[in-house]
Amino acid sequence: MAPSLAIACQAATERPARALAPTSRVAAVCSEVQASRIGHKLDLPSVLKTPFKIVHGPPSSSAGNPAEIAKLFPHLFGQPSASLVPSDATSAVSKQNLKIGVVLSGGQAPGGHNVITGIFDYLQEHAKGSTLYGFRGGPAGIMKCKYTELTSDYIHPYRNQGGFDMICSGRDKIETPEQFKQAEETALKLDLDGLVVIGGDDSNTNAGLLAENFRSKNLKTRVIGCPKTIDGDLKCKEVPVSFGFDTACKIYAEMIGNVMVDARSSGKYYHFVRLMGRAASHITLECALQTHPNITIIGEEVAMKKLTLKNVTDYIVDVICKRSELGYNYGVILIPEGLIDFVPEVQQLIAELNEILAHETVDEGGLWKNKLKPQSLQLFEFLPQAIQEQLMLERDPHGNVQVARIETEKMLIQMVEVELEKRKQENRYKGGFQGQSHFFGYEGRCGFPSNFDSTYCYALGYAAAALLHCGKTGLIASVGNLGAPVSDWTVGGTALTSLMDVERRHGMVCF
Amino acid sequence: MAPSLAIACQAATERPARALAPTSRVAAVCSEVQASRIGHKLDLPSVLKTPFKIVHGPPSSSAGNPAEIAKLFPHLFGQPSASLVPSDATSAVSKQNLKIGVVLSGGQAPGGHNVITGIFDYLQEHAKGSTLYGFRGGPAGIMKCKYTELTSDYIHPYRNQGGFDMICSGRDKIETPEQFKQAEETALKLDLDGLVVIGGDDSNTNAGLLAENFRSKNLKTRVIGCPKTIDGDLKCKEVPVSFGFDTACKIYAEMIGNVMVDARSSGKYYHFVRLMGRAASHITLECALQTHPNITIIGEEVAMKKLTLKNVTDYIVDVICKRSELGYNYGVILIPEGLIDFVPEVQQLIAELNEILAHETVDEGGLWKNKLKPQSLQLFEFLPQAIQEQLMLERDPHGNVQVARIETEKMLIQMVEVELEKRKQENRYKGGFQGQSHFFGYEGRCGFPSNFDSTYCYALGYAAAALLHCGKTGLIASVGNLGAPVSDWTVGGTALTSLMDVERRHGMVCF
Repeated sequence: MAPSLAIACQAATERPARALAPTSRVAAVCSEVQASRIGHKLDLPSVLKTPFKIVHGPPSSSAGNPAEIAKLFPHLFGQPSASLVPSDATSAVSKQNLKIGVVLSGGQAPGGHNVITGIFDYLQEHAKGSTLYGFRGGPAGIMKCKYTELTSDYIHPYRNQGGFDMICSGRDKIETPEQFKQAEETALKLDLDGLVVIGGDDSNTNAGLLAENFRSKNLKTRVIGCPKTIDGDLKCKEVPVSFGFDTACKIYAEMIGNVMVDARSSGKYYHFVRLMGRAASHITLECALQTHPNITIIGEEVAMKKLTLKNVTDYIVDVICKRSELGYNYGVILIPEGLIDFVPEVQQLIAELNEILAHETVDEGGLWKNKLKPQSLQLFEFLPQAIQEQLMLERDPHGNVQVARIETEKMLIQMVEVELEKRKQENRYKGGFQGQSHFFGYEGRCGFPSNFDSTYCYALGYAAAALLHCGKTGLIASVGNLGAPVSDWTVGGTALTSLMDVERRHGMVCF
Repeated sequence: MAPSLAIACQAATERPARALAPTSRVAAVCSEVQASRIGHKLDLPSVLKTPFKIVHGPPSSSAGNPAEIAKLFPHLFGQPSASLVPSDATSAVSKQNLKIGVVLSGGQAPGGHNVITGIFDYLQEHAKGSTLYGFRGGPAGIMKCKYTELTSDYIHPYRNQGGFDMICSGRDKIETPEQFKQAEETALKLDLDGLVVIGGDDSNTNAGLLAENFRSKNLKTRVIGCPKTIDGDLKCKEVPVSFGFDTACKIYAEMIGNVMVDARSSGKYYHFVRLMGRAASHITLECALQTHPNITIIGEEVAMKKLTLKNVTDYIVDVICKRSELGYNYGVILIPEGLIDFVPEVQQLIAELNEILAHETVDEGGLWKNKLKPQSLQLFEFLPQAIQEQLMLERDPHGNVQVARIETEKMLIQMVEVELEKRKQENRYKGGFQGQSHFFGYEGRCGFPSNFDSTYCYALGYAAAALLHCGKTGLIASVGNLGAPVSDWTVGGTALTSLMDVERRHGMVCF
């Protein structure tokens, strides 16, 4: 018992008044920030503010395998892209009322609500008396005909707000003949003129199939997609960026910036920050460009250069050693969520593990390891014990290794520690190393959309409704020329089939 | 090999221009937000804008054990508090130039830079020609006489900016006679009239000892403390809040709000969010008040009610089951970083483990466990295996269990899973449960200080300089009446000894 002098700490009793963070969409209890964002005025591209008509481009093909895509889309393949241009006529489109459905598909991305308000406002402006149905909980809402009729009052509190909670989202897909049948029944029951699918690459593939299906059955229901994914990997010439990417990167970059200032202020930690983005490292790259961390690992580069985990570890350790010589024993390292998917030797090891664990019992003595090829065994032994256990124990319902659950940032910290210790023994490193791990993911999917995403999404929604109003189907809304002022943004639609390729998925990599 | 249709993803090539996150303090490359914050004008309490004089309160005592505190502080004990009040005289304080040192001590908190700019601006305004030294890297900078002379140009880029990187911080303490001697040498070498110590409870205890020591040696160097800690547990009647707490809670609350919207949008995850704050759950409580999560665990309540981990788990599981009956299989749960320190049975287990592991070898068969008392053994067996291993393996240099490294949020997820599975077997729960874990800590220590923290810290710095200028020592700068407009804030100093108590630290709990 050592008496020690200390300032007595007391319990919290007073606190200064402050803004309430987002908790509810009831306007009456929304915070100052929420209210200020609701009132934020959005500009529209000029072409959407005047009478417009549609001009068509040349027939389209596909991103790859055109023959196969043409066979899958007999009615839609080859559609030209559509561009909205100002028209002299007072109105180039019919005055008819429309019944439109909208669905949010897949993971959240800031701006989704604005796509919906864009559709709604277009209908109010150009087809007064139209009805907008929001399918609840993603594509399952279409199949089960679970929807909410979206009114002006209903959508108001969601203007310029993050999240998908206006109608919620889900990851179901409309794939089987029975599911297509259910979608048809909903389309008929609600007498739908059109459907807007807000989603990523999978969801837009699905939107294309749905458009083809409705057309083949001679249903009047047309389908337009909207490009959503914070990962930023759904893009092409006509769709320069998917929405949500801009906001997510800004949120992560602010957090990374905070951590960088923290690292420099205390001078004693290396922060390993894993960032969302499994199939693409775009978020990591963009955040690196915004924050200038000490080290950034880009998955695509690792794959292209066929780097091993040992190579990646050595690269990090080399930088740490050089910084240490300069007196800096701290820093920030960015890592994409999907890093280990990009490492060829890891893919090989996982394939072998999936095979072995499906057919063999794992003996405590480790004899099962003899089934691994020498290179894979070497990699397995190189991995920290906790990661070995994760690879052995965490299996999905199909028995496959759950790569996404591996905490890559912690794995790298452990591997870096081992290598630094080795160099210390060899007198090649004299610094101190303390790793801190972070994963920035869910925090960025539902933040307030940036001004860019707010405006971009509103234009996408407006464009999607305009395309439906003009009788278009099987297109993805495309708003371009985004580097220019909003008034000069281009607006149109691009054939979904033109973005498609046939992807061969090997049994060995499953997420 | 199953061919599957997919929209081809392409590599990032274009990106819209956007703001650069904080990377460097060189004004030329600072971001728009940084520049806008640098230019943010701060108001001062009225009393600091006019000639002022000091009035004293009654003699002070201590928070506890006054006889012991009096013995430790023979020169300073009993000092009255000092309040600044407007004065009719043109100037109540001397025109003399001052040499002042300032040091940042301990963990970062948003607003630290503004304390320094407050000191600087006071000196410019009231004692032109004074010199301000910033000791580098915390109290070690005082002992090693490592400092930077802070000029107008030097401090400009740090105005209203987060972090402690202007002069950096450290956790060293000035404790031994040799260390006090080093501090005296620095004070003499730089001819210091005063020193401002910006820190938490430990650092302010240290500031008091330093003030006493300088006074006892007849040095002219006076010492003033400033209340800093994002944990919000350094407070008393005169010091209503420590700086950084307001900003940190706002940053965390925004992230929690994002995660809550995410939870509601996807409807399938329970997010377990661990929040910074080891010795106090104030941050967790404040974030709960700001965001209204589904469940909040408060450490102090757990301790008061003598709850066990099983009680806490059951409480969470009860709520999950009730929500599931209503159709909600998602939610957000806030947990303070120091939760398990508050659970009496865990403290007991850790004490026994520290004792056993110090003297026994741990046999693989687990015979060592027989040394645990029955209740502790039961708790140990109740813990998930990963936590058992952490308790056994992760030891600090003194051989003690590193409680702070236990990921409480993951531990709770695992215990909740086990209990839910049990209730499912008993047909008492039919929902689906997927836990996601988060730790929000470092992201909140170096963010841009809120307007409140910016203004509060500036006033604290101004006050600290004013107190030194008036010849005060051994006080903590206290700015009060914070619920009123800034002009009505009260300004003064409170005897550091009046906040002190003698804390008995048991060998068993060490961090």
